[in-house]
Amino acid sequence: MEARIHVITLAVKDLDRSLRFYQDGLGLTSSGIIGTEYRGDEHNPAGATAMFQLEGGLILATYPRVDLAKDANVPAGSPESCEFSIGHSVSSRDDVDRLLVQAEAAGATVTDRGHDRPWGIYSGYFKDPDGHLWEVLFNPDPNWTVPHQ
Amino acid sequence: MEARIHVITLAVKDLDRSLRFYQDGLGLTSSGIIGTEYRGDEHNPAGATAMFQLEGGLILATYPRVDLAKDANVPAGSPESCEFSIGHSVSSRDDVDRLLVQAEAAGATVTDRGHDRPWGIYSGYFKDPDGHLWEVLFNPDPNWTVPHQ
Repeated sequence: MEARIHVITLAVKDLDRSLRFYQDGLGLTSSGIIGTEYRGDEHNPAGATAMFQLEGGLILATYPRVDLAKDANVPAGSPESCEFSIGHSVSSRDDVDRLLVQAEAAGATVTDRGHDRPWGIYSGYFKDPDGHLWEVLFNPDPNWTVPHQ
Repeated sequence: MEARIHVITLAVKDLDRSLRFYQDGLGLTSSGIIGTEYRGDEHNPAGATAMFQLEGGLILATYPRVDLAKDANVPAGSPESCEFSIGHSVSSRDDVDRLLVQAEAAGATVTDRGHDRPWGIYSGYFKDPDGHLWEVLFNPDPNWTVPHQ
């Protein structure tokens, strides 16, 4: 397999709410909700999704949980916050704290305020409105390389 | 927030198993399990993790679910497959099918064999040994851009 990820798709309850959170709340760029012409039915997933363009060509997408379940042929299950986290690196401890405040104002829940971790980073976590974890981190190690810069 | 993701961390039951799957099974590059000097305790997470270098500087990491729960201050919960999926783009329908076979041989479960989706892509899904979904996709649209190329 090539060492490359193209899309990260987050299962959400409400596409509009996820668009508001990531676009209006966090400032990511999106073309809004697309794919609404694919309506789906009891067995087939609908196609409506919101996509956010990230640097390096990576796409963050939000997609209804019920549709992801049909598309992937897995049970929809119930929301669970401890499956994964997305790490977002910033340039200082203050930036960590500021982004946590911004996310909270946008509707996230801060689960862990910024603090130093034993392995040398300063970080905190928030859950997006669907419970998906983001770790906002500052790594003071000058050898830590920030991608795409 | 800058439009950038630096790390995707997957919660796993067994770090060694996740290293075998992603390194030996799928061929990703890793320095093996690192951070074992951070032992953790009842309340503090251990630091052991496996990291896989992806193109563009992105890191795929695996980290024990119990430690992610402590690090993020959330309940560990129980494994759930419908929280997110990682999309991996390949160059042909045959490559989709081949990667699904490779993943299955490495210990994944194919939940949905490759087929054409209404929105124009050919794709299939597998669950890694911890239940995390990957969608392997081919997009025949010449305007579809593959990142980092």
